[in-house]
Amino acid sequence: MSVPEHVITMEETLELARSRHADHPQLPLALKLIENTGVRTRHIVQPIEETLKHPGFEERNKIYVAEAKARVPSVVQRALDDAELLTRDIDVIIYVSCTGFMMPSLTAWLINEMGFESTTRQIPIAQLGCAAGGAAINRAHDFCSAYPEANALIVACEFCSLCYQPTDLGIGSLLSNGLFGDGIAAAVVRGKGGEGIALERNGSYLIPKTEEWIMYDVRATGFHFLLDKRVPATMEPLAPALRDLAGLHGWDAADLDFYIVHAGGPRILDDLSKFLQVDPHAFRFSRATLTEYGNIASAVVLDALRRLFDEGGAHDRARGLLAGFGPGITAEMALGRWQRADVGTATRDDRTAVSTA
Amino acid sequence: MSVPEHVITMEETLELARSRHADHPQLPLALKLIENTGVRTRHIVQPIEETLKHPGFEERNKIYVAEAKARVPSVVQRALDDAELLTRDIDVIIYVSCTGFMMPSLTAWLINEMGFESTTRQIPIAQLGCAAGGAAINRAHDFCSAYPEANALIVACEFCSLCYQPTDLGIGSLLSNGLFGDGIAAAVVRGKGGEGIALERNGSYLIPKTEEWIMYDVRATGFHFLLDKRVPATMEPLAPALRDLAGLHGWDAADLDFYIVHAGGPRILDDLSKFLQVDPHAFRFSRATLTEYGNIASAVVLDALRRLFDEGGAHDRARGLLAGFGPGITAEMALGRWQRADVGTATRDDRTAVSTA
Repeated sequence: MSVPEHVITMEETLELARSRHADHPQLPLALKLIENTGVRTRHIVQPIEETLKHPGFEERNKIYVAEAKARVPSVVQRALDDAELLTRDIDVIIYVSCTGFMMPSLTAWLINEMGFESTTRQIPIAQLGCAAGGAAINRAHDFCSAYPEANALIVACEFCSLCYQPTDLGIGSLLSNGLFGDGIAAAVVRGKGGEGIALERNGSYLIPKTEEWIMYDVRATGFHFLLDKRVPATMEPLAPALRDLAGLHGWDAADLDFYIVHAGGPRILDDLSKFLQVDPHAFRFSRATLTEYGNIASAVVLDALRRLFDEGGAHDRARGLLAGFGPGITAEMALGRWQRADVGTATRDDRTAVSTA
Repeated sequence: MSVPEHVITMEETLELARSRHADHPQLPLALKLIENTGVRTRHIVQPIEETLKHPGFEERNKIYVAEAKARVPSVVQRALDDAELLTRDIDVIIYVSCTGFMMPSLTAWLINEMGFESTTRQIPIAQLGCAAGGAAINRAHDFCSAYPEANALIVACEFCSLCYQPTDLGIGSLLSNGLFGDGIAAAVVRGKGGEGIALERNGSYLIPKTEEWIMYDVRATGFHFLLDKRVPATMEPLAPALRDLAGLHGWDAADLDFYIVHAGGPRILDDLSKFLQVDPHAFRFSRATLTEYGNIASAVVLDALRRLFDEGGAHDRARGLLAGFGPGITAEMALGRWQRADVGTATRDDRTAVSTA
């Protein structure tokens, strides 16, 4: 995990909103919504004065490419080191990022730059937004289920600050300007061995007829993020999907040992706690990501998982749930048990473990 | 498979090049390159006079969305019908398209519009270009290997005409203007049963240090396709990768029963014939796609496969190779045996078959 060096605090965000939108009729509401996010600091790839300019889509995207190339390799290297793997051990790279666009994807450059094998599979995903972190873990799980000896590298690179649009003045945009942050996370899903979540089952769920609730308006000025005011309430229809998946697995979603979920905003965590009947403390990893980094899109779940590692991990065979939420509205959900490296893995070599950096 | 109703012939393409680029110093070369493509007709989503205008990235992308929504469902329905499956039988939708950008991807709309299950997995891929047809088949194969009861729907939706950029005057652009066409293809990969290629092995290969040879320059006017003049010669380094994959499988790439490859241009087919030592007739399906539709990007391999079906398919257990080529430079390769529905499938229920529409 890596966040950029330029920090913007909640106070600075509020002050910017006040000074730039002094005449906005809904300024008080915007300030209240931003305060309610609980986002204390965000880290962004450029100083705030640069971020507030819009140099054009082309220039913005060039910044995305340059920053990704400058920042991704070290995060990937740390993920490989933590998993005790070399580049040649990686069979597939799943690269998720919705805040810049390249064709070919950064995967091709990474393979060349870091010396991955020429036969490495590439799965670049740009269109699942904040759900893509969960999707990447799930597709890595599928891949390792198909090829039990394989290892998957996941990279989530999100520079949400590069999607700031100064002319977007709707209340959803003003809120987003105070909510999203930048970050890069990487994780390795090993077919065998390692410490982390031994993935056992995954699933997806799309809330019917919500495909326009979170979306990009694609314009000459780049991607314009549209956020419907109904989005914060979507945990009510998604909680049953989480319960159903756990039920299929013989588990009770209300009674798991750890929870790693996308922290899209504070209401998501509050509502999940309410609708799943889970103690808010269970979402402390996601809450900490939100508070310290803001919503860093697909990288949230990987950062929250990193915080669970930093806490020493869970007890061996602890049961947990991981879920990303994003446009669609889609949930990408996974169930697994914590696997400790120090317990010996002889009896569970068939399980896919995810570790992070 | 579906191609749009607006047809442009080789003669019309040449005449347009002559009239629009009369003063271009390399016009004779451009005309010769276009003639050499052998592309007799292309089908495009708008009349040519509309196509030649550039109404802006935003308007272009809106056309992409509208045309995709208007044209994709019937192609998907035909693929389902051909595979004798219902929407509820589909576990994952792999949507590949590099000629427009949406977030969420069209997958979310398709699930809502056509009544796929809310639990359908979505794998949208926008950044593998022409290699994405092969990648979609390979990821579907992986998915069905992980879940042998599953069925995958593949959709390739490419409106290359919407990436026409009137201000791009390099020789690669003039050639591209005469080479690319529009088309939509769909295919189903069934975990069990069906007729088509029973997939046995897949692999990827990236030619080192070629990530800038085929790429998009992302600008306010949209995606600008950049084509390096070294691209047509890439079958020389890719043929060994095809041979290696076949060798791993105990097969000889020079001695297979059918070949379904991306027809990026005529040289690709000629060179594959030369470097794999395979009779040019073996590439007749890909050649026909190129001649009748032009390079329709990720949809080429699915259309070429459809032509093999139309020819009556191969003999039971015939061995074949399928490969997409695209930016990276990446090859996405698959090996499989033809599985006839009329032979009975009792002994090979474990094989994943791909059928197309």
